[in-house]
Amino acid sequence: MSKLLVVGTMAYDAIETPFGKTEKTLGGSASYIALAASHFDIEIGIVSVVGDDFEQKHLDLMTDRQVNLSGVEIVKGGKTFFWSGRYHNDMNTRDTLVTDLNTLADFSPLVPESFQEAEILLLGNLHPAIQISVLDQMKKRPNLVILDTMNYWIENTPGQLETVLGRIDVLAINDEEARQLSGEYSLVKAAEAILAKGPKYVIIKKGEHGALLFQKDQVFFAPALPLEEVSDPTGAGDTFAGGLAGYIAASRHISFDRLKNALIHGANLASFCVEKLGTERMETLTSEEAKKRLQSFKDLTHFTVELD
Amino acid sequence: MSKLLVVGTMAYDAIETPFGKTEKTLGGSASYIALAASHFDIEIGIVSVVGDDFEQKHLDLMTDRQVNLSGVEIVKGGKTFFWSGRYHNDMNTRDTLVTDLNTLADFSPLVPESFQEAEILLLGNLHPAIQISVLDQMKKRPNLVILDTMNYWIENTPGQLETVLGRIDVLAINDEEARQLSGEYSLVKAAEAILAKGPKYVIIKKGEHGALLFQKDQVFFAPALPLEEVSDPTGAGDTFAGGLAGYIAASRHISFDRLKNALIHGANLASFCVEKLGTERMETLTSEEAKKRLQSFKDLTHFTVELD
Repeated sequence: MSKLLVVGTMAYDAIETPFGKTEKTLGGSASYIALAASHFDIEIGIVSVVGDDFEQKHLDLMTDRQVNLSGVEIVKGGKTFFWSGRYHNDMNTRDTLVTDLNTLADFSPLVPESFQEAEILLLGNLHPAIQISVLDQMKKRPNLVILDTMNYWIENTPGQLETVLGRIDVLAINDEEARQLSGEYSLVKAAEAILAKGPKYVIIKKGEHGALLFQKDQVFFAPALPLEEVSDPTGAGDTFAGGLAGYIAASRHISFDRLKNALIHGANLASFCVEKLGTERMETLTSEEAKKRLQSFKDLTHFTVELD
Repeated sequence: MSKLLVVGTMAYDAIETPFGKTEKTLGGSASYIALAASHFDIEIGIVSVVGDDFEQKHLDLMTDRQVNLSGVEIVKGGKTFFWSGRYHNDMNTRDTLVTDLNTLADFSPLVPESFQEAEILLLGNLHPAIQISVLDQMKKRPNLVILDTMNYWIENTPGQLETVLGRIDVLAINDEEARQLSGEYSLVKAAEAILAKGPKYVIIKKGEHGALLFQKDQVFFAPALPLEEVSDPTGAGDTFAGGLAGYIAASRHISFDRLKNALIHGANLASFCVEKLGTERMETLTSEEAKKRLQSFKDLTHFTVELD
């Protein structure tokens, strides 16, 4: 069975949207990624850090899904990373109210031996130095390294970020970040500029407007499913990344066509994530429910009548 | 051969974008619609009004493409509708600098007898009273009536707009207008609310983010082609509408599947429209060039590997 190693945050979030509010929900990129990737027949390992306030039920939630937590450091007397945000009425923009790094401030990732030869490595949005440290700990170059990053690292650690970009295969970032990283407004030009920095593939996430996959001279678009209601977009991007990494790990073969499907699987899982606050929906989602909805993505974009 | 009757504006535009500027270019919804629809094997008639400053070369441009102008009133001593706008750096937002209605202010549409039994009627964005007057002049109910409107009519003539909505088949508007008309933020809910007002189909245009087609319980998404450069988005929405109306008129059969293809044809033609300022690109575009690009739309969204 293929192994997917996920490096990212495990957190507690407080979220407020026009439709609801939660004072404390499981959050963090690694949590969402692992919950999504657990729908595929693979072994998942997380490298992260939490405080000893991290609840047993949330550790159990992961181990119940066969997620290996031997790479998750639990800091005695430490507090888990905490994030709080409030969404505006359009659900596309939000204010960050609190970011308490807590134990994350001194995070020094340690890849467990059992995952040092993982086939797929997903480096969540963290300091590029941490991402490099994980790459350095891999005994075998993974078949695919997927990277997420954000405007903060683009602005503050551009040199280290360039180094990471030279060592990965897929960069998955949102449209504004792609523009910032490349200095190009057109997403086609932005993708070209990013491909020139090293990655073989670039995935540009556009939230409710879907996601684009670029390879040299090729482009694919995965739509977001039009939904009646979005309760909370938190974690949708990580769920998307987790779904695509999980699918690719399970398919044991990497190509542009496989990545197309991976994006669709990611978009499919993300369409569930936003249905409830925090990780709530992803905690109850069954793989049967997820499979059933996949057909909607074909119906949404496929046309069968001849065009000419 | 099927007939498509187009009611809309013929205008002169002055356009400024970050990439170029023109003091006077052919504009108006009917001009863009007819240029796009002329790529299909149909008869096109325009109902519009211009001043006698409207240049012979622009009349010739239309008649050279077999567009019937007997419904275009040329007002002696009158001036043609003039619009001027400046696009911001993101190319998605613009300021209107001048709107001189001129002859359009007293426009009283007269449908030529040869088009009173047209199979397809496209009512461009105009006062709902004008749209109703055209509907009343049709001797036979067209097989498909497509309507465009805008925020101004939603705000200022809601009663008359409701009347028109009860007499058409397809409403094609942009996302903000759909939200305003329905009072719903979710586009899925907005479409449901609009379908309840009468139209059988709703098309929601999202500019560079593509367009959604809704029928009761069905949805289709046509992407916009990711482009290296957009020179000028003016007329893209009208070109999209003209392409879809032209395709439907030529196909002589109306169904959800046919409309899917119609949206793809519309998006394909719109991808050319934005390549140059004003109508410039649409004036030179050949049907062979248009057909060739259609394949990109399949490549962009179709995935072939099994999903489960």
